Amino acid sequence: MAFRETSVDLQLRWSDFDMLGHLNQAVYHQLLEEARAALTVGAGPDFPWVLARVELDYLAEVRPEHGPLTVHTQVVEIGRSKFSLAHEITRATGEVAARGTSVIVAWDIDARRSRPLTPEERRAFGADDAEGASRG
Amino acid sequence: MAFRETSVDLQLRWSDFDMLGHLNQAVYHQLLEEARAALTVGAGPDFPWVLARVELDYLAEVRPEHGPLTVHTQVVEIGRSKFSLAHEITRATGEVAARGTSVIVAWDIDARRSRPLTPEERRAFGADDAEGASRG
Amino acid sequence: MAFRETSVDLQLRWSDFDMLGHLNQAVYHQLLEEARAALTVGAGPDFPWVLARVELDYLAEVRPEHGPLTVHTQVVEIGRSKFSLAHEITRATGEVAARGTSVIVAWDIDARRSRPLTPEERRAFGADDAEGASRG
Amino acid sequence: MAFRETSVDLQLRWSDFDMLGHLNQAVYHQLLEEARAALTVGAGPDFPWVLARVELDYLAEVRPEHGPLTVHTQVVEIGRSKFSLAHEITRATGEVAARGTSVIVAWDIDARRSRPLTPEERRAFGADDAEGASRG
Repeated sequence: MAFRETSVDLQLRWSDFDMLGHLNQAVYHQLLEEARAALTVGAGPDFPWVLARVELDYLAEVRPEHGPLTVHTQVVEIGRSKFSLAHEITRATGEVAARGTSVIVAWDIDARRSRPLTPEERRAFGADDAEGASRG
Repeated sequence: MAFRETSVDLQLRWSDFDMLGHLNQAVYHQLLEEARAALTVGAGPDFPWVLARVELDYLAEVRPEHGPLTVHTQVVEIGRSKFSLAHEITRATGEVAARGTSVIVAWDIDARRSRPLTPEERRAFGADDAEGASRG
Repeated sequence: MAFRETSVDLQLRWSDFDMLGHLNQAVYHQLLEEARAALTVGAGPDFPWVLARVELDYLAEVRPEHGPLTVHTQVVEIGRSKFSLAHEITRATGEVAARGTSVIVAWDIDARRSRPLTPEERRAFGADDAEGASRG
Repeated sequence: MAFRETSVDLQLRWSDFDMLGHLNQAVYHQLLEEARAALTVGAGPDFPWVLARVELDYLAEVRPEHGPLTVHTQVVEIGRSKFSLAHEITRATGEVAARGTSVIVAWDIDARRSRPLTPEERRAFGADDAEGASRG
């Protein structure tokens, strides 16, 4: 069974570009967040995720004419209370601008701490386990 | 000879906090950028740096009452055209909120590509080399 | 001859929403900027405009489910070196979320000061004048 | 009795500056928000305010060397469920960069609509009325 993947096309804004004339490095992380939201939507209750770790390699600069960007994201690992994603950000014309990974933790917003993934969430992300169900 | 290090205190803004009530994950990268700017200032001409890679572990959430934040940054490796930094972001009360590393590339803004670090830059960051000077 | 108008559909991002659960007030101004860019594109050289004044009435809050937003913009007055726009921001379902006006000044980026609108710009925005041409 | 006023010094970030090399127009609205937060703090419960209207005149551009900026804010009118503020943003060296006004509405976060100012809030902002107390 394949792990979930998504692809989102994201508009850029004038204010996303900095004095060097290219997409500011922090904006990439806003875009990854949109990709994570697209990937987790429908997997469980709203907003139960927080980011635990991110790695990003900036491979080619993005100028205004390179947008909109596409973020392709794939679940690559599913743990007990967290899962990992691989991201690739491409220009409108297809060149890869950045590649990275995120580690996401299921979050209990009231307790403000991590919680186990539910069996439904595990299945939504592509985990193929009876085990996940029994652990819920 | 010690590698350069800096510590900057950074104000947070209301708009930095998201619907989960904590500092949005992308804002941390704006703060790291301020730390990198503080570290590179005076090391050479203005704005000759771009970010090639970032890794960040989010260790504890930051709520409005945790600001201002401090970003402590240290040069940990100096290469031919790039150097690496270790960052630690702490709350006003000292708890570590995030830890990460950046890889910075010296940038030729006209050619829009990397360039070798100058001997002056290498010395400013703490490289202890005759080699650096001869390579300039 | 009608003054130029445009309508742009703009995606929202998770990081655009603040702790009150609605679109942060400053983000509206990023969206107006996108609308102004759409309106001025093709009217003359790139980026020759700066914002001199903005007024905005926030009429209804915008929550994540209200996006994407549409910004409808119309030139309402054309002066010697500036022009005025009326904006209306609507939710995806059509309710008006905000209304405002912008005053834009033609900018000489080298001299860092205002410059007269060119006859081509005046025509592009919808001015119907022989006068504009002679004044260029 | 004088209406409340405040003055806040605000750091700028590299990412606040856009491709024209000056402070992006939307960032000014983040700064005004900080000023409003400083003015309302202690006047009542947390976050009970929303912005209803803003007007801003951009008078001089702000480049990186002009920060930190100061926002001076004064209550200029107090109504039943709203109040008005006058803002002045100055460069570190004192020149006025922008002037504007905000209209703020007291907000009932559960009902998601406006509410009357409490007598305590009216007094905190400088209203000199027995009337305010009886109207609460």
